[in-house]
Amino acid sequence: MPREIRINAFDMNCVGHIQQGLWTHPRDQSARYADIHYWTGLARKLEAGLFDGIFFADVLGAYDVYGGNADAAVRGAVQLPANDPALLIPAMAAATRHLGFGITCNLTYEPPFMFARRMSTLDHLTGGRIGWNIVTGYLDSAARANGLSGQMAHDDRYDLADEYMSLVYKFWEGSWEDGAVVRDRERRLYADPAKVHRVVHDGAQYKVDALHLCEPSPQRTPVLYQAGASTRGRLFAATHAECVFVNGQNPASVRAIVDDIRALAVAQGRRKDDIRVFLGATIVTGRTEAEAREKFEDYRRHVDVEAALAHASASMGIDFARYDMDEPIATGQSQAIVSNVEAMTRASGPAWTKRKLIDQLVLGSRQQPLVGSAEQVAETLIRWTEQADVDGFNLSRTVTPECFEDFIDLVVPILQERGAYKTSYRGGVYREKLFGHAGLPASHAGARYRRPAHA
Amino acid sequence: MPREIRINAFDMNCVGHIQQGLWTHPRDQSARYADIHYWTGLARKLEAGLFDGIFFADVLGAYDVYGGNADAAVRGAVQLPANDPALLIPAMAAATRHLGFGITCNLTYEPPFMFARRMSTLDHLTGGRIGWNIVTGYLDSAARANGLSGQMAHDDRYDLADEYMSLVYKFWEGSWEDGAVVRDRERRLYADPAKVHRVVHDGAQYKVDALHLCEPSPQRTPVLYQAGASTRGRLFAATHAECVFVNGQNPASVRAIVDDIRALAVAQGRRKDDIRVFLGATIVTGRTEAEAREKFEDYRRHVDVEAALAHASASMGIDFARYDMDEPIATGQSQAIVSNVEAMTRASGPAWTKRKLIDQLVLGSRQQPLVGSAEQVAETLIRWTEQADVDGFNLSRTVTPECFEDFIDLVVPILQERGAYKTSYRGGVYREKLFGHAGLPASHAGARYRRPAHA
Repeated sequence: MPREIRINAFDMNCVGHIQQGLWTHPRDQSARYADIHYWTGLARKLEAGLFDGIFFADVLGAYDVYGGNADAAVRGAVQLPANDPALLIPAMAAATRHLGFGITCNLTYEPPFMFARRMSTLDHLTGGRIGWNIVTGYLDSAARANGLSGQMAHDDRYDLADEYMSLVYKFWEGSWEDGAVVRDRERRLYADPAKVHRVVHDGAQYKVDALHLCEPSPQRTPVLYQAGASTRGRLFAATHAECVFVNGQNPASVRAIVDDIRALAVAQGRRKDDIRVFLGATIVTGRTEAEAREKFEDYRRHVDVEAALAHASASMGIDFARYDMDEPIATGQSQAIVSNVEAMTRASGPAWTKRKLIDQLVLGSRQQPLVGSAEQVAETLIRWTEQADVDGFNLSRTVTPECFEDFIDLVVPILQERGAYKTSYRGGVYREKLFGHAGLPASHAGARYRRPAHA
Repeated sequence: MPREIRINAFDMNCVGHIQQGLWTHPRDQSARYADIHYWTGLARKLEAGLFDGIFFADVLGAYDVYGGNADAAVRGAVQLPANDPALLIPAMAAATRHLGFGITCNLTYEPPFMFARRMSTLDHLTGGRIGWNIVTGYLDSAARANGLSGQMAHDDRYDLADEYMSLVYKFWEGSWEDGAVVRDRERRLYADPAKVHRVVHDGAQYKVDALHLCEPSPQRTPVLYQAGASTRGRLFAATHAECVFVNGQNPASVRAIVDDIRALAVAQGRRKDDIRVFLGATIVTGRTEAEAREKFEDYRRHVDVEAALAHASASMGIDFARYDMDEPIATGQSQAIVSNVEAMTRASGPAWTKRKLIDQLVLGSRQQPLVGSAEQVAETLIRWTEQADVDGFNLSRTVTPECFEDFIDLVVPILQERGAYKTSYRGGVYREKLFGHAGLPASHAGARYRRPAHA
């Protein structure tokens, strides 16, 4: 019996998310991103397909590395415009009962007191279906948008993030005890002040003295996602993350990352199954392989290479506008760029060039699409799950929402037949559906901020 | 023909809003505030009653002046818990077509770049139905929650607010020109970079260098509300506000405030009708006066005096827990307290005491309820509108949502008969429904941040 495969839709409150240019396909509806009914309709579709969740990426700045400005990003709608994803959730939650919601929030620019309230509110309004993808950002443009001259150093951002986490745990887990809320109309007693505590935090980065403004929500702490691949990022994930996103083109290399994260988690006193790993995947499928290939060729004609280069420039920190097609890419000053270029050079031979990069951008991004009949896709996903030891997939969108409809109509029934996909939702909150328990387990770093049960 | 009366529901994402203790009434549903379906149901009701909008108060700290701690606020659910109001809007918007939404956001603690995006996102998702009540806060507890030792001085907060407004206008009005968004699939051109501009702001309080992340929303700048009653607050309102909230127990004194604000606006080059004034009102009504009085007596039995004192202590800056019933209230050090005490003393005779305050808290707040048959209520509202030169009312809730249902079922039909209430919604965005134009008028301070139309 294969293990159960979890599926999230990977999306963003914008036009061009990962696969750049596909918004120009006549059937693509991503340009409806500002229409609330587009999102409630998508939520209902994903719930009908028993998706575990929809997961929203986000950025807080423009992609302005390519050519030294954001022009290509503006032209190609490369994650710009990018509306706030958190505001989609309440409407999608009102239209569904089980679908989980993950949102990316960059803690660097979110005041912790108000952020803690926003997440608690979402957890209340969704009935305990909210997850948070913890990011510290990678865009200098986001730093400049928020009044800084540039980003903090990579590892310093994670130090700040560790302090931030300790602070939000205090709000979510420590401020209101279980049983604090009495809601007794007779005695005119809503809550018991002896069980509601001020969070007093005086740290290196943050200073707070406040009650959490929210009573405990169904999950208290949202399901915590993280996607950091660096050494420091993996340690952070092993400490805080319950779900981890990984990307990678071959199961063996993904397996090495997954093994490492699970081992690090075990070293922190957690179990290896306390972490669910989701692998990014781009799927183009059809009733037959021929139909899938035809669809893929059709989609391909709508790829926007300049937009994809603008995206890659910002993610890798390399201005590809400055390079000729066959000129070797220089590593420059930045450590991140050195490691990116080294990795690409290892993968593609000694002289990594813009031409080689463009050859990789087959569907408008560096993520290679999986193209095949529903049967082939289902088999590949089952195989990858085993080989890479991942728990599921984040499906990035191609032509949307058609890509999700195809997966639901064609692939899900085959996965179900193979016993690799649920046939109905489990009960309970998001964390319960993923792990079987509603709150953080005792072994999680956040649990130590709980107060002992009141006498 | 009387003038059209505009009606907003005045509410908050919490249990006890203005009238403290009424959550304990068996028919009150305010304790359902964390249930998204409670709010979508309320939105549908208000739209059926042709309400102009629902307006959300908010606080970012606990009421901890009474007794020097938040215990009474916790016991009585006095605006604590207080969930984030912005997150209610998308679900309520998806359930309605015309209802407007006003949310209170304290700019002091909202990073402007992300706040501008949040409001633009809401304006997109509501189809142009969002308003913003600009506040600078009055709680030291909110300052401490956000890492400060206390609030800025009153007038300094307004200076910061003026700079903040100039910055958000740059995002909303100046960053993306009309016509910047092309959405041309053939040419793979989503937007024209020549018409999308970086906001570069280097002010006393804020420093920003960024594109606005959102394309123009239906209203661009949300409908701007303000409620400041101080001299500095009125000047701010006269400059920025399109809708103003006032409170007051008699039409003549309200008229003086309204005249002053309209005159100040005219002095800024605006027309007096560029500002709609809403007067706070608490209404208990029934089919007959006797029924209304009976309802009022029933509601009264659920008032929580300690909770109302905790609320009054925080709003007035006076710790009423320290006073005996008949001890004169001292003015203390703070200018705000001196003026509060002087006003109350003027109103109630030389020795203003806790007993006199409690006598005023008839329905759990200092706002005196208007109790009467639907006919009496309708006549009073029409008279007040004329005498005080206000455009409408913010109805604070008593036993909810029954209080809004009563108003819709009983008072609205009479107002309609008298020609003082619309019989269907106008078309267009929120600002259009209120003023007849979708964007800020040219005479508004925000309009100067627009770019001249691109050649």
